[in-house]
Amino acid sequence: MDIRTAAKAAKRAAIQLAAIETDLKNNALQAIADEMWAHKTKILEANEKDLDFSRQNNLALPLLKRLKFDEKKLAETIRGIESLIGLPDPVGVTLSARELDEGLELYQITCPIGVIGVIFESRPDALVQISTLCLKSGNGVLLKGGSEAAHTNRALADVIVTASESAGIPVGWLQLLETREDVKQMLKMDESIDLLVPRGSNEFVKFIMDNSNIPVLGHADGICHVYVDRDADLTMAKNIVVDAKCQYVAVCNAAETLLVHEAVAGEFLPMVQEALSQYEVELRGCPKTRAIIKVNTATEEDWRTEYLDTILSVKVVASTEEAIEHINAYGSGHTDTIVTANQSTAEQFMKLLDSSNVFWNCSTRFSDGFRYGLGAEVGISTSKIHARGPVGLEGLVIYKWHIRGSGQIVKDYAGGTRKFTHRSLKK
Amino acid sequence: MDIRTAAKAAKRAAIQLAAIETDLKNNALQAIADEMWAHKTKILEANEKDLDFSRQNNLALPLLKRLKFDEKKLAETIRGIESLIGLPDPVGVTLSARELDEGLELYQITCPIGVIGVIFESRPDALVQISTLCLKSGNGVLLKGGSEAAHTNRALADVIVTASESAGIPVGWLQLLETREDVKQMLKMDESIDLLVPRGSNEFVKFIMDNSNIPVLGHADGICHVYVDRDADLTMAKNIVVDAKCQYVAVCNAAETLLVHEAVAGEFLPMVQEALSQYEVELRGCPKTRAIIKVNTATEEDWRTEYLDTILSVKVVASTEEAIEHINAYGSGHTDTIVTANQSTAEQFMKLLDSSNVFWNCSTRFSDGFRYGLGAEVGISTSKIHARGPVGLEGLVIYKWHIRGSGQIVKDYAGGTRKFTHRSLKK
Repeated sequence: MDIRTAAKAAKRAAIQLAAIETDLKNNALQAIADEMWAHKTKILEANEKDLDFSRQNNLALPLLKRLKFDEKKLAETIRGIESLIGLPDPVGVTLSARELDEGLELYQITCPIGVIGVIFESRPDALVQISTLCLKSGNGVLLKGGSEAAHTNRALADVIVTASESAGIPVGWLQLLETREDVKQMLKMDESIDLLVPRGSNEFVKFIMDNSNIPVLGHADGICHVYVDRDADLTMAKNIVVDAKCQYVAVCNAAETLLVHEAVAGEFLPMVQEALSQYEVELRGCPKTRAIIKVNTATEEDWRTEYLDTILSVKVVASTEEAIEHINAYGSGHTDTIVTANQSTAEQFMKLLDSSNVFWNCSTRFSDGFRYGLGAEVGISTSKIHARGPVGLEGLVIYKWHIRGSGQIVKDYAGGTRKFTHRSLKK
Repeated sequence: MDIRTAAKAAKRAAIQLAAIETDLKNNALQAIADEMWAHKTKILEANEKDLDFSRQNNLALPLLKRLKFDEKKLAETIRGIESLIGLPDPVGVTLSARELDEGLELYQITCPIGVIGVIFESRPDALVQISTLCLKSGNGVLLKGGSEAAHTNRALADVIVTASESAGIPVGWLQLLETREDVKQMLKMDESIDLLVPRGSNEFVKFIMDNSNIPVLGHADGICHVYVDRDADLTMAKNIVVDAKCQYVAVCNAAETLLVHEAVAGEFLPMVQEALSQYEVELRGCPKTRAIIKVNTATEEDWRTEYLDTILSVKVVASTEEAIEHINAYGSGHTDTIVTANQSTAEQFMKLLDSSNVFWNCSTRFSDGFRYGLGAEVGISTSKIHARGPVGLEGLVIYKWHIRGSGQIVKDYAGGTRKFTHRSLKK
């Protein structure tokens, strides 16, 4: 099936899917979980094929690790589906209700967005996660995975399609695309794809964002900062810096730059240097930092770099204002934290920082849908509209306005015969 | 000032503006209203200059009418600002609040989007309306108006800038752009402009949408439908069709296509033809329509056309499903209404229609921010994300996640020493 036909089929199914009851969607999710387990052998064999081929082609180890989909991964993925079943249906929620006049009522009601285009690199669990999120939120989905995972993706998509359609989900709601040419086409299809969700490396997401008119939910860079204020508890600050940098270095919410107020730099920098040395973190400092501790030099480029590695750039600032300006200039609008005992400084930081997640006295690593208690996570968005920060199911819905009338016409209101009441109704 | 410098200045001011108290913003809006009235003569003289020049250049009458900014228009515009002052501040609203653990609290709080790029054609009142909406919602704004209104725009922008900055709004928050080259630049500045709001003709909005990576709030076409179901009260249906088509033909929420169930077409079409003939509406029908009433032929092109004129295309359908399919295929996702006494048919229509506004038993003309009771209106959006249908001030804000902690690090939760409570907090 070519991509235009596939998109048309997904659109047609999505229209029907928008009206499907919660129970039917949850039953379909349960059927997917059950069938994935029932087809375990087939899925794991498909993954072995992909792994063999990738090993023969000398795929790098981290990529092989992401590609691997074993029994443990399968069980985790199934647990993810089961927790998704437990979440409230994001569709059909009344956001506002207003009487416009007697017998003329306005309702703002959540509904699916339509067709979601998902593009991901090697991780096959991303296919399951995002397609079940789309199902729960009533969206059709076009999926394009990495070619190195072609067999696994096909096996997983087959199970999802068969199980969900047998359970009554409209035929065609999920379409798996398999050629590289399809991706190029997808990026241009702003008439039939309503939202793109790219999952993968920064470069990959950035490429998608730069090459499509379709709105993108996600983030490219995660250049996160810890700012240690003059009024910080320095032991707390040290623990937060170590956690933000070292707890997991290869993730988007890990810290990449440390800013320290000059009033405490003399005391704090040696403390933090010692603590980070236990994790073999390389420090790169500004001239003021290098006047206090012996570290490599940070260049202008360092302030713009997401290392995703055991490297931390360090800058001494003269004020909270300078810290805020630095972050707003060099940050990526992802997650930044201040350590201070001074509430008004913290409020100023949180108000003036142009980031999705602004924290006070805790690690940047808390920036995550599961830690936020959102349940299933679509991803973390650094967009300025629609959805920002960790995005749960509600990022896959929008709303419609319903009016329920009894024959009203505008002429009567324009002419003054009738007047609007604009009275709030119970939701 | 070149556009990059202007955008930088607006961005810098917007950061400060995000943290400004409601009272200060409202005082600034009052100062703008007062100063506009105080500078009445200057503003009206500037408009006379623009009108003279446009008359000399033989600008079409409807354009001259839009360009005209007289004392009456000024008074209306000022009343608009004063009603905006009365609306609640959309910034700083707590959307959700959750305890993650003891002493670790998550808040989702509304904030301005950042810098809004506004591009409008000849109407100078659009400049005032949108810039005051941006001020109230804490956004910086880059404005580009039509060159035929250059003097009026300059006079209005001068008053707004002087009055607001004297009242304490950060210097540089509003920037007026004046060359055609600026628009081209603007469309490419996705790094510094967060949202575009184009105001003007369909072609104009469509051009903006097709030529920028920046998200656009607005709509191009308004191809609205009235569907008269087999269970409709035909007198009600006739009144709704007349209102939806004729109450104001040149607007986006006027009906362009009438769909009639075949079971009532024989009775209804002659009724509605007679009613519309009093407004000299030209009907263009499908073959089934033409078998019942004598009208011109509708071509495939008619179903896709927003006439904005006294023309209505008419199609007889065999079922509600066919009506829904027609609207989803040819409509513009703006506003569509069903006339029926059958509740389950109405529910089906409202659920399966992929439009921003779906109505039951009332005119499409109700699709409007003021009629919806939203107060000030940014515009009507047919986007599938962020904001849809008539958009009030809340379309100009997004949210940030704040965490207020007391030194927490992720390592403790990952290691199992601490557990998340995920307890809902009072907002």
